[in-house]
Amino acid sequence: MANQFYSKRDLAFHLYEVLNAEQLTQFPYFQDHNRESFDMVLDAAGQIAGSLLKPLLTEMDRQEPQLVDGKIRVHPGLASIIRRFGEDGWINAPFSYEEGGQQLPATILNAATFIFGAANYSASVFPFLTTGAANLLRSFGSPELIDTFTPNMYAGRWQGTMALTEPDAGSSLSDITTTAEPTDQPGTYKIRGQKIYISAGDHDACENVVHLMLAKIKGGPVGAKGISLFAVPQKRPENGRLLVNDVLTAGVYHKMGYKGAPIAHLMVGSNDGCIGYLVGEPHKGLSYMFQMMNEARVGVGMNAVSIGTAAYYASLEYARERPQGRLIAEKDPSKPQVPIICHADVKRMLLFQKAVLEGSLGLLLQCSYYADLVHAAEGDEQENAALLLDLLTPIAKSYPSEMGCLTTSAAVQILGGAGYTTDFPVEQFYREARIHPIHEGTTGIHGLDLLGRKVIMQNGKAVTLLLAEIQKDIIATQASPEGSALSDQLSAALGILDNVTQHLLSVAPSDTEAFLADATLYLELFGIVVIAWQWLRQTIISQQALSDAHEDDRNFYQGKRMAARYFYEYELVKIHALSRRLLSADRVTVTMQNEWF
Amino acid sequence: MANQFYSKRDLAFHLYEVLNAEQLTQFPYFQDHNRESFDMVLDAAGQIAGSLLKPLLTEMDRQEPQLVDGKIRVHPGLASIIRRFGEDGWINAPFSYEEGGQQLPATILNAATFIFGAANYSASVFPFLTTGAANLLRSFGSPELIDTFTPNMYAGRWQGTMALTEPDAGSSLSDITTTAEPTDQPGTYKIRGQKIYISAGDHDACENVVHLMLAKIKGGPVGAKGISLFAVPQKRPENGRLLVNDVLTAGVYHKMGYKGAPIAHLMVGSNDGCIGYLVGEPHKGLSYMFQMMNEARVGVGMNAVSIGTAAYYASLEYARERPQGRLIAEKDPSKPQVPIICHADVKRMLLFQKAVLEGSLGLLLQCSYYADLVHAAEGDEQENAALLLDLLTPIAKSYPSEMGCLTTSAAVQILGGAGYTTDFPVEQFYREARIHPIHEGTTGIHGLDLLGRKVIMQNGKAVTLLLAEIQKDIIATQASPEGSALSDQLSAALGILDNVTQHLLSVAPSDTEAFLADATLYLELFGIVVIAWQWLRQTIISQQALSDAHEDDRNFYQGKRMAARYFYEYELVKIHALSRRLLSADRVTVTMQNEWF
Repeated sequence: MANQFYSKRDLAFHLYEVLNAEQLTQFPYFQDHNRESFDMVLDAAGQIAGSLLKPLLTEMDRQEPQLVDGKIRVHPGLASIIRRFGEDGWINAPFSYEEGGQQLPATILNAATFIFGAANYSASVFPFLTTGAANLLRSFGSPELIDTFTPNMYAGRWQGTMALTEPDAGSSLSDITTTAEPTDQPGTYKIRGQKIYISAGDHDACENVVHLMLAKIKGGPVGAKGISLFAVPQKRPENGRLLVNDVLTAGVYHKMGYKGAPIAHLMVGSNDGCIGYLVGEPHKGLSYMFQMMNEARVGVGMNAVSIGTAAYYASLEYARERPQGRLIAEKDPSKPQVPIICHADVKRMLLFQKAVLEGSLGLLLQCSYYADLVHAAEGDEQENAALLLDLLTPIAKSYPSEMGCLTTSAAVQILGGAGYTTDFPVEQFYREARIHPIHEGTTGIHGLDLLGRKVIMQNGKAVTLLLAEIQKDIIATQASPEGSALSDQLSAALGILDNVTQHLLSVAPSDTEAFLADATLYLELFGIVVIAWQWLRQTIISQQALSDAHEDDRNFYQGKRMAARYFYEYELVKIHALSRRLLSADRVTVTMQNEWF
Repeated sequence: MANQFYSKRDLAFHLYEVLNAEQLTQFPYFQDHNRESFDMVLDAAGQIAGSLLKPLLTEMDRQEPQLVDGKIRVHPGLASIIRRFGEDGWINAPFSYEEGGQQLPATILNAATFIFGAANYSASVFPFLTTGAANLLRSFGSPELIDTFTPNMYAGRWQGTMALTEPDAGSSLSDITTTAEPTDQPGTYKIRGQKIYISAGDHDACENVVHLMLAKIKGGPVGAKGISLFAVPQKRPENGRLLVNDVLTAGVYHKMGYKGAPIAHLMVGSNDGCIGYLVGEPHKGLSYMFQMMNEARVGVGMNAVSIGTAAYYASLEYARERPQGRLIAEKDPSKPQVPIICHADVKRMLLFQKAVLEGSLGLLLQCSYYADLVHAAEGDEQENAALLLDLLTPIAKSYPSEMGCLTTSAAVQILGGAGYTTDFPVEQFYREARIHPIHEGTTGIHGLDLLGRKVIMQNGKAVTLLLAEIQKDIIATQASPEGSALSDQLSAALGILDNVTQHLLSVAPSDTEAFLADATLYLELFGIVVIAWQWLRQTIISQQALSDAHEDDRNFYQGKRMAARYFYEYELVKIHALSRRLLSADRVTVTMQNEWF
């Protein structure tokens, strides 16, 4: 088992050298914080991750949750872990002091979830799903609902979930059929339907589970406009007691990976006995969900980077220790073998992981920073941050998710045959990574979101803002030959991106289907350019810091510079292939017919 | 569970329309065969695959082999399956009538293994590992060895394996430490050492196991030149009895996928009681192995296509049946949902699989055809086929293996959340596919083989031959606008490949490390060009056949034309990214230092 699963040094680099996260403390909401308090939070996260989460990584994969007597039995270690997250204040950390929270910036909380996810992704999802569900309640629910549910959720006694998907409604949420019928109690509805793929669904590590559930109030509008949001507890609190609320667990899905967290199939109100509490106004459920989507999606991207990072360090450790073969110029077979990290192709696979993961981590923390500005800043600063976050969210979710499948694959490849066995953790990371391009919106859905919605919103204002941000960093590099070599390439890449965007927008009016047919490729191209920008930012800082750095830090900054070069040499060039396809007039996928397959 | 797992129609297209496999019957060795006998073989394969292998696909994954009382216990259904392969003559099908074989062309046998592998990859490896081991014995062993071992192997009573890898010698075979010490019996040696990752190692579905094992005779040359080949049976036949031969199973590896086939860790001669029989001459073991490598490597490529094909048909069936969402231009949510195969992005993921897999299948059958020419033809025809096979083997092994990870991933993505659960077979295919870039030489090793050895052998004669073959097909397309549109792109791609090759060869004399640093990327580029060539060939035939075809066949040929267009639009363009990197002078991976990670 690898010892290192993330780099504290790299996290500090992103937070304090690139982002200057301390600047957030200038806003009233965050004013009690400072770098020391941030570091205490991150140290505490590292401590829990290493001592409580990581030791269960393998066990939780091998001992899958099982449905026993109608209840999902999870790993016995989870109950105390979830309570610990509650007791230590993680679940409501971003919320206000009045709510018992710590007013912690999302930037810092997400850095902590990065650490937790790298230690044990499955274990890490339980508390932060509760955070997401509680956030919906506190943002849109009545004071009574908030009082009833959130204290138990914050304490880790009650699990929170998001219950959206149904057997016939996954990517197409407007087609849900779960119904809500008013009772004679105001705000109280009878709920009937089925929900599937409910992460952290009704398990036995908490006393109760509160589902934030989408359903349609009978007689409401068809489609997405008829969807409302309900709090549907597994056990209904009434007069200080918890009553059975007719939410039955029909099954637990067995999955390829991410096995420690149960994904439940729920039968809701099969016996006509399920009560749900309307959250906010009727028919606004989907818009409430969407207001929380950005954070959930940035969270998924972060989880993808977490798993990839754990795999990266496991493969790095192996590459340093495993002797095999000799350098190519060495022809003498009696010479000792060298560690495989000496082979250029192994270094390529390590640099690939490093470049993708640290580039993605930079983007995700920057998105978290924008989320903090949306919350704490005002005026233009707030509005611009909101637009940038909206634009970058599909990329921040999808690029790390898609690439995480490839980086964990590179980790497996470095270990060779050993990597394919369960004796090493990398095969588990490979299986776990595969969930991320699927959940919280598939990559295809995010492609449509980026090209069909985000790029064109407010006449392209978000793209204009992003380009201005990137231009600032390009100008900052002009002083040094190394920086300007990268920034020249990035400028050219921006030209290509703009060219592709203009071309696709010119297709849109006459042929919507063709306009969006390759939105997934457009998302990939845009993602590569954005990560190249992240590496430009990291290079500027590293170059400046290098001359005065002591030896360990010199190595760190040299690694940054090489990873940036790697990204530009091996990854950024991919836009030349993508743009050729995106500029082509051959509508091959649109034209293809079902019966020709 | 998906019903279709391969396309009989597509296989016939490759064999009879593209390759004209019947032409092989002009050679004396194959003269008793004809299309009818080939079809009987393939129908028999389809029958066994569907009725015996496929029903165990999931079970063999869930009930992993276990080490019980020193013996590996495999799925109980395997014993009768392996015997059936023996009784039906599959194991020695390619060998001569004198040996009890059928003198079946490799082209047809490999088409059959494609079918078996698509039904149940793990089950399919047992008999054909025996074929490979027996082939080493019959090619290089003494008549006594052949008589002692091969009849039982052909009958499926004794398993054959290849025992190469050791704990400290995987990619670097020259470093094996297993020793062989002569006894007073000529040709008989005491063997001592450890072997790991032995596929179909000592299991309980056969009466005995014969390891074709590499070891070093004491006092021999260091490195690869001191490696000899031995037949090391688990039980030693002496005077009609089977004696224990001190080959202990130290463990069975638990793996991410491909679980039905055990991978053993063997302790050989720990009690000084293991006898091995020298095969051929001393110190020639590695060269013997290499003479069999081409077929084993083409076999791995074929297995990769098999698994990918099963995943493709599973995802195609799902895409046709699963309703979700509406076409982009349809704004009315009360309209019924459409099957997801109507969405351009889903068609893209299906076309991706089809284009990669059917292109790869074409290449693999063509390589098998070259293998048949090497065996049955004479003079220039034989020599040219040998050179082409040598050149194409690293590509035929690696391109399908690497891409198989991505095509099975696309199959998972099409199924979405369902694809990540064990309720559908695609997650198993995704796990199984991951072995292929590792075993039988990692992708990195094949990159070095292609660029460092194959491209430059005989002053580039193999490349010249290949280009001449491709030019023939390019000329054949000039008549039609569709064909020439593709062949113009392929000509340009050949120019880029040549440019890259010349550049790398110019680097070689002064800097071997830099010359080969990106050999994996060179392999990828070369592979894409070769598969594009395969699609040109398939397009020529499909175009010609389309006008006279009846309706089902029209759909088939339209599908071929679309898949070809897909490959050129989405895959061939990738060479523009790869060539930029390969032509770059930035030695980023060579320069990178261990301590900078």
